[in-house]
Amino acid sequence: MFSKKHLLGLEYVEKSDIEVILDTADSFKEIIDRDVKKVPTLRGKSIVNLFYEPSTRTRTSFELAGKYLSADTINFSSSGSSVQKGETLKDTVKTLEMMGIDAVVIRHSSSGAAEYISNYVKASVINAGDGTHEHPTQALLDMMTVREKKGTLSGLKVAIFGDILYSRVARSNIFGFTKMGSDVYVTGPSTLIPKDIEKTGAKVVPTLEEAVKDADVVMALRLQLERQKKGLFPTVREYCKFFGLNRDKLALAKSDALLLHPGPVNRGIELTSDVIDGSQSMINEQVKNGVAVRMSVLYHLIGGSR
Amino acid sequence: MFSKKHLLGLEYVEKSDIEVILDTADSFKEIIDRDVKKVPTLRGKSIVNLFYEPSTRTRTSFELAGKYLSADTINFSSSGSSVQKGETLKDTVKTLEMMGIDAVVIRHSSSGAAEYISNYVKASVINAGDGTHEHPTQALLDMMTVREKKGTLSGLKVAIFGDILYSRVARSNIFGFTKMGSDVYVTGPSTLIPKDIEKTGAKVVPTLEEAVKDADVVMALRLQLERQKKGLFPTVREYCKFFGLNRDKLALAKSDALLLHPGPVNRGIELTSDVIDGSQSMINEQVKNGVAVRMSVLYHLIGGSR
Amino acid sequence: MFSKKHLLGLEYVEKSDIEVILDTADSFKEIIDRDVKKVPTLRGKSIVNLFYEPSTRTRTSFELAGKYLSADTINFSSSGSSVQKGETLKDTVKTLEMMGIDAVVIRHSSSGAAEYISNYVKASVINAGDGTHEHPTQALLDMMTVREKKGTLSGLKVAIFGDILYSRVARSNIFGFTKMGSDVYVTGPSTLIPKDIEKTGAKVVPTLEEAVKDADVVMALRLQLERQKKGLFPTVREYCKFFGLNRDKLALAKSDALLLHPGPVNRGIELTSDVIDGSQSMINEQVKNGVAVRMSVLYHLIGGSR
Repeated sequence: MFSKKHLLGLEYVEKSDIEVILDTADSFKEIIDRDVKKVPTLRGKSIVNLFYEPSTRTRTSFELAGKYLSADTINFSSSGSSVQKGETLKDTVKTLEMMGIDAVVIRHSSSGAAEYISNYVKASVINAGDGTHEHPTQALLDMMTVREKKGTLSGLKVAIFGDILYSRVARSNIFGFTKMGSDVYVTGPSTLIPKDIEKTGAKVVPTLEEAVKDADVVMALRLQLERQKKGLFPTVREYCKFFGLNRDKLALAKSDALLLHPGPVNRGIELTSDVIDGSQSMINEQVKNGVAVRMSVLYHLIGGSR
Repeated sequence: MFSKKHLLGLEYVEKSDIEVILDTADSFKEIIDRDVKKVPTLRGKSIVNLFYEPSTRTRTSFELAGKYLSADTINFSSSGSSVQKGETLKDTVKTLEMMGIDAVVIRHSSSGAAEYISNYVKASVINAGDGTHEHPTQALLDMMTVREKKGTLSGLKVAIFGDILYSRVARSNIFGFTKMGSDVYVTGPSTLIPKDIEKTGAKVVPTLEEAVKDADVVMALRLQLERQKKGLFPTVREYCKFFGLNRDKLALAKSDALLLHPGPVNRGIELTSDVIDGSQSMINEQVKNGVAVRMSVLYHLIGGSR
Repeated sequence: MFSKKHLLGLEYVEKSDIEVILDTADSFKEIIDRDVKKVPTLRGKSIVNLFYEPSTRTRTSFELAGKYLSADTINFSSSGSSVQKGETLKDTVKTLEMMGIDAVVIRHSSSGAAEYISNYVKASVINAGDGTHEHPTQALLDMMTVREKKGTLSGLKVAIFGDILYSRVARSNIFGFTKMGSDVYVTGPSTLIPKDIEKTGAKVVPTLEEAVKDADVVMALRLQLERQKKGLFPTVREYCKFFGLNRDKLALAKSDALLLHPGPVNRGIELTSDVIDGSQSMINEQVKNGVAVRMSVLYHLIGGSR
C-alpha cells in the first residue's frame, strides 16, 4: 500500500513505497500483452491529462494506462483553453476538481507546479514532468526495467550522462536509484552539471568513459538542442565527441550492462544507431514498462488501496 | 419530460421544461461525488463537441457529463479539420449526423449558429454558446445553484453586472430567471448596455450599488478585455472603480446573498480575490452543477425520455 | 476471412478480400442506426489515429467505428507531439506498439508512409491516406455504396473526373472498381492526368461529357485549389466550365446513375449545389458507409477473424 496521496517526485518517497509501485507494475505488465487489454479496476474514475508542454509518449502512456484500467480519461492542453483567457493554474485545477476528477496528471514548464496545485485539490496529483525538477514516473519505469533484468537495484553502478543540469529525468532517477541502493555516477559538459548535484547522492566524474566503466546501467539523457544556442556547449559535433555514446564506449561497461534512454532519441547525437537498436538497449522495454508503472501509480493513488 | 428536441436558448423554453431539467440535475448531482462515477443511462449514444471557439470548462464539462452517463464523446475542433478546407457548417453537421451522432454540442462565434444547424439534422443540437446570443446551459447551472440554496427562484432580486451588451451568459440568465419569477436588474458602463434590453424583462439601473442593494443573487460577468480597445470603456482601472465588485459593495446585498460568476474570473477586475474566495461565492459550486445540468440536458434530449 | 494483416492499399488486395470486407460492412451498417450503437466486438483493443495531415471526417469516422465496436481509441496529431521533437516516424510507431496498440490508422503526406511503418510493427497498419498513393477505406466505402444500390459492381461504367494526378482517392477507386469488374473511365485537365494511368486499368477520355455518357456511377474528386497556383489549370472558372458537373452534364449518364464525391465538396466548383443535394447524390450515404466499412476493416484486421 502506497502511503501518499500524490506523486510529486521521488525525493521524498520512501523506499518501501517505490517497491510497492514496482511490484504492482510487474503484475500489471502482462495486461498490455493480452488480447483483451481491459480490467475494471478504475471503472468510474476520471483522470485529466493537463499538459502545458508538448508531449506524446507521456500523455499517450498515461491515457492508455487509464483506459486499460477502465478509467475515463480527458485531455486538456494549453492551446484552445481557459489558459489563453488568463486563468490561473490554481483556478483551472480547482475547476477540474469540482467536475469530479479523481486524478490530475500535470506537465508544466515551472518547477514545483505539481506540488503547488497539490495544496489546493482533493484529487490526486501526479507529476508528469515539472520544469527541471522531477519526472517521477519516468524514473519508476527506468527502475522497473532494471530491476526486471537484474533482479535487484541494490549495489548496481548506474551511469547517467548528458544534460544533468536541466534534466528532470536525471534528478528523479538519482533520487530513486540512490534510495534503492544503487551507486549513481553522473557526467556531462561541466556547464551542464549543477554545482550542488553531489548533495543528491550522485557522484560526478569528468568523462563518459569513467562513468561507463564497469557500469551495470548506462542511462543517456535527451539533449535539448536549444541549449547549444545558449552557449552551454560549443557545437553538437564537439558534444558528441565527448558525450555521445557509441559501441566502443558502451563496451567499457559490464558485458551485460543495460542501456536506457527516456526517448525520443536524437539518433546520432546522444547515441549511435547501432547501440540504440543493439541487444543491450532497453528503450522499447522502457516504453512498455512506462504503461505498467503508470497503471500501478494510478491504481495506488485513486484505486482505493490507500 | 422535456418537450423539445434541441436546446438552443432559454428565450423560448417553457418554465415547466426548465423545472424538469433542474429537477433531474438535482438528482444526477450525487453521481459526481460517487466513488464510481458511471451510470449506464446513455450507453451506446454518441455526442460530438463541435467547438469553433476556444473553451475548456464548457467542453470538459460536457465531455465528463457524457462519460459519467456512459455515452461516447468525440471532440471536434476547428483547427486541423474540414473547416480549414472550407466546408460549410451545414455540411459538417450533416456529415456528423450520417455517422450516427445523437447530439451535437456546438460553440460558435456566430449568433444563431445552433438554431441554424438544428434545421438540418436529426441529431439533437445543444447550444454551448453562440456569439452574443445565448448560452443556455450556463444559465441553467446558475439557476440550479440558486434554487439549491434558496429553495426557489420566485421573488428573488437578481443583479447582473458588467458587459451586458456582448454577454450570451447575461441574455440566457435574464430569460431564465425572469421566467422563473425572479426580478432581474442589470448594470454596467452605458456603452455595454444594449438599448432594448428592457424588452427581455430586465430592469436597467445606473450603478452597481443600486443593482446590488438588497439583492439575493449577485452575478458578475466576465469582462472581455479586448472591449476596452474598442473604446467601450476608458480604462480597466476606471471600469473597476465603478463596476468591480469588492467586499464593501457586496455588503449592500442581503447578508445571505449568493455571488455567481461564469468563470474564468479575471481576478482583481470583475471581482476582488476576497469575494471570489469568500463564503458567499458559489463559483466552485457552479462548476459542479454545470456537470449535473449537462447530464440532465443530455438525458432529456437523447436518453429516450422525449 | 480477410487474408492480410494490414490494409495499405487496394492495388494488391484480392477481389475475395474486398468482398469479405464489403459483406461484413453491410451487416455492421445497421448498428449505426440503432438506439444503442455499441457491440462488444473489439472490447479491450486499442487503436491509434496517427494523423500527420489535417482531417476531420476520416479521423472521426475511424474513431466512431472503433467506439461502436467498444475499442479504445487514442488520437495523436502531429502538433504538440514528439514529432516536433524530431522523432522519426518509425520510432513513433515502435513506441506506440510497445504501449500495446493493436492498430495504427495513419494519414501522412508521404506516399508509402503506411507501407513503410508496416515493416516495423506487429500492430495492424491501416492507410487512411498517404500522399498521392492510396486511400483504401475511401474506395471501399465508395464500392459499398454502389454495390448496395446496384447489386453488383460487375459490368458497370464508372466515370471518375477531376484531379486524377494527385488523387489517392482516384487511385484506390481505380484499383478497386477494376478488380471488381467495373469499367473505369477517367477525365480531367490534361495537366492533371498522370501519363501512365492506363496501366492501372482505367481508360482516359478527353471530355467530361464522354466520361459521363451512359455511366452507372459518376465520381467527382475534390479539387485542391492550390493546384491552380502551380499552373496546372488556368483559372477555377475555366476548370468549372470543362470539368464542373452540373445537372445537364449529369443527365448524360444513365437515368439511375449514382453521383459520388469523397467530401468535403467545394460547392459550385466540382459540383453545382443542385446535383450535390439531388436525388442521385450518394454523398451522405457515403459518409454513413464509411463508418460501416471502417468497422469491418478494424474487425477483420484486429478482431481475431484472421
